[in-house]
Amino acid sequence: MKEVEQTVGAVTEPKGFLASGVRAGIKERGLDLALIVSECPASAAGTFTSNRIKAAPVLLDMERVPSASVRAIVANSGNANAVTGQQGLRDARRMTAEVALRLSINDNDVLVASTGVIGRLLPMERISDGICKAVSSLNREGGADAARAIMTTDTRPKEALARFNIAGVDASIGGIAKGAGMICPNMATMLAFITTDLAIAPELLSASLKRSVEKSFNCLTVDGDTSTNDTVLILANGLAGNKRIEAECVELEAFQSALDSVTVSLAKQIAADGEGATKLVEVCVEGAASFEEARVVAKTIANSPLVKTAFFGGDPNWGRIVAAAGRSGVDFDPSSMKLFLGEIEILSRGEPVGSAEEDARQYLTGSEVRLRLVIGGGPGSATVWTCDFSYDYVRINAEYHT
Amino acid sequence: MKEVEQTVGAVTEPKGFLASGVRAGIKERGLDLALIVSECPASAAGTFTSNRIKAAPVLLDMERVPSASVRAIVANSGNANAVTGQQGLRDARRMTAEVALRLSINDNDVLVASTGVIGRLLPMERISDGICKAVSSLNREGGADAARAIMTTDTRPKEALARFNIAGVDASIGGIAKGAGMICPNMATMLAFITTDLAIAPELLSASLKRSVEKSFNCLTVDGDTSTNDTVLILANGLAGNKRIEAECVELEAFQSALDSVTVSLAKQIAADGEGATKLVEVCVEGAASFEEARVVAKTIANSPLVKTAFFGGDPNWGRIVAAAGRSGVDFDPSSMKLFLGEIEILSRGEPVGSAEEDARQYLTGSEVRLRLVIGGGPGSATVWTCDFSYDYVRINAEYHT
Repeated sequence: MKEVEQTVGAVTEPKGFLASGVRAGIKERGLDLALIVSECPASAAGTFTSNRIKAAPVLLDMERVPSASVRAIVANSGNANAVTGQQGLRDARRMTAEVALRLSINDNDVLVASTGVIGRLLPMERISDGICKAVSSLNREGGADAARAIMTTDTRPKEALARFNIAGVDASIGGIAKGAGMICPNMATMLAFITTDLAIAPELLSASLKRSVEKSFNCLTVDGDTSTNDTVLILANGLAGNKRIEAECVELEAFQSALDSVTVSLAKQIAADGEGATKLVEVCVEGAASFEEARVVAKTIANSPLVKTAFFGGDPNWGRIVAAAGRSGVDFDPSSMKLFLGEIEILSRGEPVGSAEEDARQYLTGSEVRLRLVIGGGPGSATVWTCDFSYDYVRINAEYHT
Repeated sequence: MKEVEQTVGAVTEPKGFLASGVRAGIKERGLDLALIVSECPASAAGTFTSNRIKAAPVLLDMERVPSASVRAIVANSGNANAVTGQQGLRDARRMTAEVALRLSINDNDVLVASTGVIGRLLPMERISDGICKAVSSLNREGGADAARAIMTTDTRPKEALARFNIAGVDASIGGIAKGAGMICPNMATMLAFITTDLAIAPELLSASLKRSVEKSFNCLTVDGDTSTNDTVLILANGLAGNKRIEAECVELEAFQSALDSVTVSLAKQIAADGEGATKLVEVCVEGAASFEEARVVAKTIANSPLVKTAFFGGDPNWGRIVAAAGRSGVDFDPSSMKLFLGEIEILSRGEPVGSAEEDARQYLTGSEVRLRLVIGGGPGSATVWTCDFSYDYVRINAEYHT
């Protein structure tokens, strides 16, 4: 995987992208409306929530990507525009129309995303004023404000930048994301917006994004709750000047690798800043029959409240880890299990390694925890990122009143 | 469903059952070894954990039921005898052999269960002494002590008794259970032991138990973590004097109804006493294509940390409820959804009912919460029991160190 940096303003680093983040007054305080614009039409692709209940902006974007001509993404925090019926769909369309009007582009070339409270109509007057402000604030250093404007209860913005060289041409990929938590906490929506100046056909961009999301954001869990609004969008405007990628080739592989480094970095930043998180937890499962089976086991462990509270308590409670693996629905031979915390072997051939406990307890005092579970001799492996489960998770989600 | 009482000593109410609960010294304090004995051979059946990793006593019991000749159940708390390899299996066998020796019965006619820390060998000397003490303490009022001896971090014993009349003969069913939490918390093992003086063939007993468990204990969730040790056992010794039930008949239906009332009562008692629980939460899903689909939706809601923390906070956060339903994997039309909290209609045809929020907030101040979600016009419905998710859940599971 490529070197990746958590550069401030990452999303406006690729050539030809402008952005801004402004306060429209949707949330109680702080920036809450983000705009990302490409100076020329960009190939665009997206992946969206698998929740049966999809928010209005998700339904609208699904109609509009993949596309060869997207110019802008507008996103608000503080209101999810979800379970808002026909009016919600009209409001999502109107957001894109207002951006299009002010930029003199087509409505269909604007994408939209929302995150925040479910079941309330958008305050459209404030949003209109916000869009007006956002358009006049667009600039080449606006990426940092955009990253802040999509935050809800995130404690810090998430940004990632990868630079790569493709057939002698310098190109870059910038991404921003928001994670778990909201100012009006109803759902922990995951949003990510990625820009690149690479020239690439929309269908290939779409396929690359899907592959990348599968092993990054889809390997991320804070609390197992899939939002109605999850959205990942990528714009590729071609201004790097490479020969447009139109088929599978070595250049596509180089792009895929750089893209993966950005999506994995954003996914890990989201996990580390999960609601109430004190630790980033990486769960690697190896030896499964397939990637999918390995991911099921890893996600079952990563979602177990018993495992997550044990990590919060700094307790090497491996019984909870293997019990979670055992209930995952994936078949394996318990007597072949191996388990490592960091480099410390905890279980060998299904039986506890005596003397490991004190080392393991010491290891768990760090802010990053890596556990590796081997469940057989198969070729499938997967890595999932999550965080621990603390008092603050309960506080954030219980003390707030809608 | 039959009237059911939370009678103290329920498991020794049916004719011909003795029990005791003693301190063997496995846990730090309190009773930790339970013995239930039938004066004559009993039909016996069991249902066991679906976890791929099964504790030694589970593996042993699975060999021994259904049976027509069981005489005793021995159970310890404080140590799960799970992930303990061949020695664990030998220890489980030895527990049953020592009970058999002291009661002059066959080893195969004794069942065994354990709950507590995973991955440690049983302290067999203490257990032997405990079994000796338990046999000499057996008595007709011992059910209450047995109920206490299987507790771990349960704050109170769970007992249920149903009396019924079958073809003019009075019979009864008594049950005890333990729920979520341990003195050495590694797993929240669910154990339940049920006695009845009904005369019934083992295969029919087994089928009745499976049916009953499906809609009671299998509709129960505290944290979504399935233990390695979950065990439900039933003994039917025939001393009520009814004509032995050998086939489907109206008497079998009467028994099923009484049995269901006992298992549902125990399941609800376990949910209400889940780790850190402040509220019993009942989730009813209706209008699904089948019972199984309804249960998947209900369990997804009942396991959502966002839903559970909202209930702890007393917040009618219906967005979290419908979003959990939406990610359950079950297909339904969001625009047909209806949602009720108690009798208060929150959502009608997929859209919020204005003005319900204050009533809903008031309703959530109670110690029992019932939510009903209608997802279509299908015949499938299911009820699942759980509890809210509080600071104490995190405290119990994080602050303890193995």
